[in-house]
Order: sequence, then C-alpha cells, then structure tokens
Amino acid sequence: MVTIKDIAKACGVGVSTVSRVLNNRPDVSAEVREKVLLEVRRSGYVPNNSARDLGRNQGNTIGVVVRGTGNLFFADVFNKLTDEADARGFSVIPRFIGSDDDEIQAGAYLEREKRLRGIIFLGGRFDYTPEEMSVIGVPYVLCTYSNEFGTLPDDVYSSVSIDDYHTARTAAETLIGLGHRKIAALIPSTADHSIGELRYRGYLDALSAHDIEVDPQLTAETGSFDLDAAYERVRRLIEENSDFTAMFAVSDTMALAAMKALQDSKRSVPEDVSLLTIDGIQISGFTNPSLSTMVQPAEEIGRKAVDLLAEVLEGRAHRHLLLDTVLRRGGSIAECRTSRPDR
Amino acid sequence: MVTIKDIAKACGVGVSTVSRVLNNRPDVSAEVREKVLLEVRRSGYVPNNSARDLGRNQGNTIGVVVRGTGNLFFADVFNKLTDEADARGFSVIPRFIGSDDDEIQAGAYLEREKRLRGIIFLGGRFDYTPEEMSVIGVPYVLCTYSNEFGTLPDDVYSSVSIDDYHTARTAAETLIGLGHRKIAALIPSTADHSIGELRYRGYLDALSAHDIEVDPQLTAETGSFDLDAAYERVRRLIEENSDFTAMFAVSDTMALAAMKALQDSKRSVPEDVSLLTIDGIQISGFTNPSLSTMVQPAEEIGRKAVDLLAEVLEGRAHRHLLLDTVLRRGGSIAECRTSRPDR
Repeated sequence: MVTIKDIAKACGVGVSTVSRVLNNRPDVSAEVREKVLLEVRRSGYVPNNSARDLGRNQGNTIGVVVRGTGNLFFADVFNKLTDEADARGFSVIPRFIGSDDDEIQAGAYLEREKRLRGIIFLGGRFDYTPEEMSVIGVPYVLCTYSNEFGTLPDDVYSSVSIDDYHTARTAAETLIGLGHRKIAALIPSTADHSIGELRYRGYLDALSAHDIEVDPQLTAETGSFDLDAAYERVRRLIEENSDFTAMFAVSDTMALAAMKALQDSKRSVPEDVSLLTIDGIQISGFTNPSLSTMVQPAEEIGRKAVDLLAEVLEGRAHRHLLLDTVLRRGGSIAECRTSRPDR
Repeated sequence: MVTIKDIAKACGVGVSTVSRVLNNRPDVSAEVREKVLLEVRRSGYVPNNSARDLGRNQGNTIGVVVRGTGNLFFADVFNKLTDEADARGFSVIPRFIGSDDDEIQAGAYLEREKRLRGIIFLGGRFDYTPEEMSVIGVPYVLCTYSNEFGTLPDDVYSSVSIDDYHTARTAAETLIGLGHRKIAALIPSTADHSIGELRYRGYLDALSAHDIEVDPQLTAETGSFDLDAAYERVRRLIEENSDFTAMFAVSDTMALAAMKALQDSKRSVPEDVSLLTIDGIQISGFTNPSLSTMVQPAEEIGRKAVDLLAEVLEGRAHRHLLLDTVLRRGGSIAECRTSRPDR
C-alpha cells in the first residue's frame, strides 16, 4: 500500500506539500504540482478519503438541489457555485431533480442522508410557507429565485436572484423606447406564482406606465418552458394576431423557439418583429440574428449563493440579494417602423 | 416524531403502499400517491434514509463522473442515466469536473470516499492505459466514448457510444452526395487522440473514397470546443479560402458558431455553404436555418451505460456497444450549386 510519505519521499518534498497538491491548494509551484501528480499516478496512490472526509468535512458538507436540469442557465450558475464552495472548503453533494419534482422533499431527504450543514436550492417554487419548509432543519439559500408569492419571514432564509419584475419591466420599456406599442408576451403562465407571473407583471406595468392598452390577445401562454410548445404557440399567435411589432419572451430558450416560429411564418427579426428576452446564455449570442437579452450574472449568482450560506453558518443574519442585469444588445431588436410612417 | 405507520394510518393505506410512494414505484394509483405525498408534506415526515441506505444501498451505490459540464449533449445523457439507475435501485453519486480535469483521479477519489460498486465515466480521454486505470478498483463503463487510442484490453471495461468515425464519414458522404467537393472541416484538433481526431478521420476517408483531394487549408482547427474560438476560426477560414461550398463541423454547438460566422461573412446557409454536424441537441432544431445533424441517441446511451454496469455487477462479461445515429435533415444542407453549372 503506497502512502503519502512514499509519494513525498519519491518527489523529494514534504508530506504537507503532497497534501496541498492533493487538496488542490494554490500555494504550490506548477513544477512541484506536476511532479507530485505524476508520482501519484505512477504509484497508484489513492488518498484515504474516508479519513480525510472525517477530518475535513465533519459538518462541512452542503447540499445543492438543482430543479430542472434542462435549464441551460442553471449549468453556468451550478459550475460557479461548486467552484466557490470548493474554494471555501465545503464538500458539495448535488441532487438533480426534474422541473416538476418537489425540491423541498429532495432537500429534506438529502439533509438526513448526508448530515448537511446547509442547502442551496438552485431553482424552485416562489410560494413556500413556513409549514412546508419546516422539514428543512438546516440553513438554506434560494438561488436564482426568491419567495415573492410565499409567506416565509425574511429572517429564516437567504436568497440571491435578479429582480425579475424590474428586469422584465426594463425589457418591455426598452421595446417601448424603440417605438413599439403592439408588444406580445411569451410566457409559461400569467398566474403560476412563479417567474412567469413576476416577469409578466413587469411587462404589464411597463405598458401601463406608457399608456399602452394591454391587448390580452397578445399574451401567449405556453403552459411550460417546452420549446416545441413555445414554437407552436407563437405560430398560432401570428395566425390570430398579425399586427404586433415586438415580443417580450420570458427566457432565452423560449425566445429561440419564438424566433424560429416568426421566421417560419415569414416575419423577419428584427425588421418585422423585435424580440427581447431575459437570461443571456452563451448560445443565444450565436443565433441569426443574435438575441437581445437582459443578461443575468450567472457566475455572480452562483458565487453569492455560497457566500450567503457561509455567512449564516458563521452566525450572521440571513440576507436577500437582488443582482443587476445588463442588456446585451444583439441583432433581434430595432426601431419600430410602423411608428414612424414619415420615414 | 412522525413514523411511516402514522402516515399509513392517516391515509387509510398500508405501510407498504406508503413505502412504494416514497420510493417512487409505479404500482400506486395517482390518487393514493397524491394523498400520501400530501400527508407526508403536512406531517413533516422525513424517511429515515440512513436506515434506508443501509438496507437498500449497501453495495448499491454507483458513481458518475461527468467531465465537461458545459457539454449540452451530456445533460440529456446524464438525466436518462440517473433515471435508469434509480429505476434499478442504484444510488447515484455524481461528480462534475471541468473538461480539462482528470476523470480517472476523480473516479478513484469518489470510489474510496463512497465505497462504490461501479463507476460510469460520462466523457473522458480516449487513450487510457491499463496502468493508469489500475487506480480504479471497481467495474467501470465509458459512456459516450471508448478507448480507440488506448491500450485497455476489451475485457476489462465496458463502453457505449456512437461510432464516431463512421458517423463522421456518413456525414461527409452525405455532403458529397449533394454534389459538394470543397468541404471544410471544423474540429478542435486533427491529432488529439480524441473525438476530434476520430471524426476527422471519417471525414478524410469519405473524401478519399470519392477521389476528392484533401485540401489542408480547408481543415479549420480551433484547439478547443469553445464557441468564440470556433467563430473566429471560421471567419478566418472564409477570408483565406473563399471557395468551399460545404462544412463538416465536429458538434452541434461548434456548428452554431460556424453558422453565425458564415452568415456574418455574408455566406448564406445552405445556399452558399451547406453545414452538417453531429450530436442533435434540441436547441439546434430551432436555429435559422435549423441544423442538419447526425443525432446521437442520448437517452439510449444513458440507459445502456447503466445496463452494461449492471450486467458486469451480476457477473457477466464486459461489452462494447456502438449505437446508431440518424440524420435529422434540417435546413442547413442543400445540393451544391457550383457542381451543376448547367442549371
């Protein structure tokens, strides 16, 4: 059985240096790191991680429940989140569940199985009650969402997300600023007590603030975030209402499906219809035209989620962070032509 | 403390029924399932999972090392893989690592930490040696790739993937069949002992088989799967070589970057350049035009990986599966116009 001492001896370094390499600490030269890793590989040495876990991770494991693994935006958040947790010495145990699964139950199970110190929920419902959350016995952070439709007191949980309502309102006002007044909305639901409803409210209030009458026929509900459903719904919207000049879509992927539907119906984007959305995943910069989108700071959201949990574990108070979005102006929005008949 | 008996009594069902609901078994009516879950929620009951783990999972935990979390194709495979593992009663412990990280070391660590029965590697190098893999002490399956450039004997590991070489060859021959002879290739590397090299070989042999001289200038290497790098490389290719009429791209996401570069350089797809690729992620059906792509059976790959591991754990031999791809003919390929001057 190869030991850490054998590795240190073979490399001519101390045991603590080998340990630093194995724990991926930065304070080791690239040369030494490579030498140690080569020797580890060559010798077949595997650290006794059960022992390491006991020493390092006693009470330092956090769970991450990811709801909706098909959400491309979550991938960016998750990667940064695990990086940050690792940098802070946390062990992360992730659990992936479907977008219709119950994240509270998943979190409660994970907590009991793994003796977690805390939980980060990446995606979930917006309407928790204290009774529901009583099954969670450790501090938790809502990541990418908050509890706008629920009854949790602010001081029992932490959260980090963008301000969905104001971001959507800014998006709709951007379209209005380009002269658009017939602006369609593409959302899963206007009343799902979730992100769709929040963003729809922002859209409605932007219209109201500019004295634009809301045309209910321009609200296209899809029932889900499914791309095929979004595509079909937009095709139908075009058949039924031919006079909108802009569309606010609830997310990048929904917007991609909408753009395809518009183009397949011979509507040019942005010449005939401007399209603006929220998220800012990488791929939407490579579409034709590229999407204009309110970019969520995915990496910062992931990092802050870990920060917030660490604060609470250190005995500090729960906090709620709303991070800013930035408009990435792609090629999918333009001035409204019909609003300038003199040109 | 609420027990499973309390739940059963409150719902007027047997303990075994509650257990089936909690373990997500199919043989329970929707009505009963809902009643039990509501009562579980209401009562704050949490199963004693430590006990459950001991009973159910002793020796039934498998690890899944996912290398390259930004790979959109992996998300589909991973989801199906975990579903299938769950259906077979395995506990799955995933570990996510970067695309440049060492999956063997990650697997070895995971094995010792969690006392795994087996490991599925989702993504990894194609050139393992028996010495390297000797740090893995449990059966393992290579998922989405195999060991074409390595020296592992076939009977020490299992694998499931598409046939990268033949799929690429079929893709290139599809373009040749449309009359194209000046066909560019977009790949990370021609000699990386990995998927890029395999697919490039298929491309080269398709050209040779049709007596098309290979123009090295039409091989665009990017050094990685990064979308920005792919975009810039294709822009440069167009500046340097204006006469290719088709492109074979190594993957869907690389093809999306290529399409953007072509369009930004005023090349229409497919009128000026046909574009064909391999993977078949959902989003590439919603681009403009939609991508033509050789679709990998992501769900079947995920399911088969678990099947193969289960077989070996039951004492059967290692196997190597090559699954078929199917051309999804989107809007990005067309007959070559320059090859039909008489039209």
